[in-house]
Amino acid sequence: MKKGLLIVISGPAGSGKGTVNSILLQSPEFSYSVSATTRAPRPGEVDGVNYHFITKEDFESRIQNGEMLEYTSYCGNYYGTPLREAIEVMESGRNLILEIEVEGAQNVKRLYPEAVLIMLLPPSFAVQEARLRGRGTETEEKICERLNRTREELPLVGQYDYVVYNRDGGAEQCADDIRAIVRAEQNATRRHSDAAVAYFKA
Amino acid sequence: MKKGLLIVISGPAGSGKGTVNSILLQSPEFSYSVSATTRAPRPGEVDGVNYHFITKEDFESRIQNGEMLEYTSYCGNYYGTPLREAIEVMESGRNLILEIEVEGAQNVKRLYPEAVLIMLLPPSFAVQEARLRGRGTETEEKICERLNRTREELPLVGQYDYVVYNRDGGAEQCADDIRAIVRAEQNATRRHSDAAVAYFKA
Repeated sequence: MKKGLLIVISGPAGSGKGTVNSILLQSPEFSYSVSATTRAPRPGEVDGVNYHFITKEDFESRIQNGEMLEYTSYCGNYYGTPLREAIEVMESGRNLILEIEVEGAQNVKRLYPEAVLIMLLPPSFAVQEARLRGRGTETEEKICERLNRTREELPLVGQYDYVVYNRDGGAEQCADDIRAIVRAEQNATRRHSDAAVAYFKA
Repeated sequence: MKKGLLIVISGPAGSGKGTVNSILLQSPEFSYSVSATTRAPRPGEVDGVNYHFITKEDFESRIQNGEMLEYTSYCGNYYGTPLREAIEVMESGRNLILEIEVEGAQNVKRLYPEAVLIMLLPPSFAVQEARLRGRGTETEEKICERLNRTREELPLVGQYDYVVYNRDGGAEQCADDIRAIVRAEQNATRRHSDAAVAYFKA
């Protein structure tokens, strides 16, 4: 069976990455993996479904042992993607989507160089700003914080393999772009280093 | 306007590259360029349509000046792709398809590093051999010559960016693979080195 790819998707606030990912995850060739966390389960949350709920000691020892593909800490708790979980998804032939931030993406690439890094962007900073303000749901302070973060992170776009622009109403187009990237990457010669040998053996 | 890509397609006898290319060329986003040759026009051939018919001196001076993207000589005549012709196609926004052999492909990559090199292959050497024999149109000697050429050229597949397998009846699938490659390449970050600057300027 053909192994799935690890697809890392990052994008600033207003890039629409949540919508794009949910479109991709509707098709069986894409999957996400269940994250691990050290925070306590909330009522109704099921271990192994919503999260793998593990102890802080367990989480930290996994970090030490390189068993976390990426992780972050937020409000005193860790959140992350167990490497084993990720590999299981890919070995089932599905492409694993990780929606993570720029720093996490770099960590993933270090631990798993075959990962495909995709940056999803609004058409421009001006459009991004208009989208954030247009939502009308966030404080001015929060909006400024998100825009400043974009100013800091965007110069790192060159570390991504692909950049996909989400133009107005274009979440479906973005999903198609990402499907094309996956299809192309599956045919990339660097993923077929045994192509010549296999050709004569088959 | 978005510039078209230069798509080099190579493939051994029996890979079906003629069929795949003709499928691609049916859509307006792909184009070929008119080759130049030093051979005399045949009855009915029109200069600038079938070929650019030029003199041997002209052809050789274009080679010297790096004005031939690739060329070959056959039966004492030169055949090749004028660089200017190729650039005009791409600047019109269409992707230029060049169907050339392994050596020519390497020359193209040297002169035009942004070129995308795709190797089209039968599923295996055994299938290739069966296809060639199944045609029943070629002498045993010719078939052996083609198979030997494949044995020599296949180890160079690593110099291609992508390898696409033409499985039984799969010319349409191959064309779709190549369309996906083009779409992905258009989003490759290395083709958007000004992405971060452009994002804030737009």
